[in-house]
Amino acid sequence: MDNSDSIAALTADIREFARERDWEQFHDPKSLILALVGEVGELAELLQWVPAAEAVEVFSEPARRARAGEEISDVLIYLLRLADVLGVDVGTAAVAKLGDSRMRFPTDEVEGIAPERP
Amino acid sequence: MDNSDSIAALTADIREFARERDWEQFHDPKSLILALVGEVGELAELLQWVPAAEAVEVFSEPARRARAGEEISDVLIYLLRLADVLGVDVGTAAVAKLGDSRMRFPTDEVEGIAPERP
Amino acid sequence: MDNSDSIAALTADIREFARERDWEQFHDPKSLILALVGEVGELAELLQWVPAAEAVEVFSEPARRARAGEEISDVLIYLLRLADVLGVDVGTAAVAKLGDSRMRFPTDEVEGIAPERP
Amino acid sequence: MDNSDSIAALTADIREFARERDWEQFHDPKSLILALVGEVGELAELLQWVPAAEAVEVFSEPARRARAGEEISDVLIYLLRLADVLGVDVGTAAVAKLGDSRMRFPTDEVEGIAPERP
Repeated sequence: MDNSDSIAALTADIREFARERDWEQFHDPKSLILALVGEVGELAELLQWVPAAEAVEVFSEPARRARAGEEISDVLIYLLRLADVLGVDVGTAAVAKLGDSRMRFPTDEVEGIAPERP
Repeated sequence: MDNSDSIAALTADIREFARERDWEQFHDPKSLILALVGEVGELAELLQWVPAAEAVEVFSEPARRARAGEEISDVLIYLLRLADVLGVDVGTAAVAKLGDSRMRFPTDEVEGIAPERP
Repeated sequence: MDNSDSIAALTADIREFARERDWEQFHDPKSLILALVGEVGELAELLQWVPAAEAVEVFSEPARRARAGEEISDVLIYLLRLADVLGVDVGTAAVAKLGDSRMRFPTDEVEGIAPERP
Repeated sequence: MDNSDSIAALTADIREFARERDWEQFHDPKSLILALVGEVGELAELLQWVPAAEAVEVFSEPARRARAGEEISDVLIYLLRLADVLGVDVGTAAVAKLGDSRMRFPTDEVEGIAPERP
């Protein structure tokens, strides 16, 4: 069984990582959001000065793609840790949220139109 | 097969959601990070004035937990969409990153010690 | 005397606003950063789907510019409140930081080159 | 005349800093928000694992306070640069926003009550 793709398995690994280090004491929800914000900041820094139209191509280079993958992973790890601490089953919640969005944005009404443009 | 827990399956669903609405044109990496930041902001707002020590208990109430689950899902959805657009296999990358962190923070050296305290 | 342009005067007004409402009890530094993140998220949402090359023109329209001004103000207000709570004189600190950056990035070395591109 | 405390003077200094380096070409609004997010992330990292109740005391130590001042300054610098690029007079806008908040949250209605608790 390949667990690397399961949200629940990854969440359990992260929990074990924290438990082994006795770091659960630091993982209150507000601290975890700040840690998440720190990682989102690193992701933002990676792309900030890359022209928007060139970003996909710039990050198709393997070393840069790997770097982007690391930063995205850091965000994911804190996000799953936060969900775990709050008792949220984020796999189920995300599927439900996507279903809500399908209802809220019917394809024939929003096709090609960005929602919430100023 | 239950796909709700698979990062790859959720990523494919999100891609389809964007494609059906012809929203792929808006999903360059920098715009997606800004959308992610918007959702992280909503998550932060949800917890900002809750005392740190009470946060887990406050969000154990079902309606609040559901709300937290929605905000975490919104962050996850944009994060997986970003990974997809950048060609990153985030399930594999996150497992690798966690492995790196196990090496970088040996349990006997960091037990009970928060890394990077000022 | 026009105080609207003074960082110290604005900081004092914000402190008074909090004191009058007995909200100082909520303004610990971590909660204030989360509130700041919430406002940064609203700013990001405002621009997320606007094409990068059109953003300045889109926001030159008075109502949109006013809206951007409100979101930027919300970020500024929490940033000055955070500085105040931490005892930081941010006017002086920012001038010093800009001076450091002038030394760190000599014009003849970095002209036209974005720092920290991936 | 001491300009270090004037928002307009600091904004003009930052504009000059960018112009001297021919960095204006990188400073479209979306890129500047990502840079701002990067700096907010560094600020969040500085406080993430400090217990909320100890944060003010921890950062009363001069070296830590100076470090916090640098991170807050970095956020302020990108925020004022963004306002400048969007043609926003943020000093005036912030005073107006604070006035709106005084109306929106009358002292006798909100005293001691955090707004928007979940």
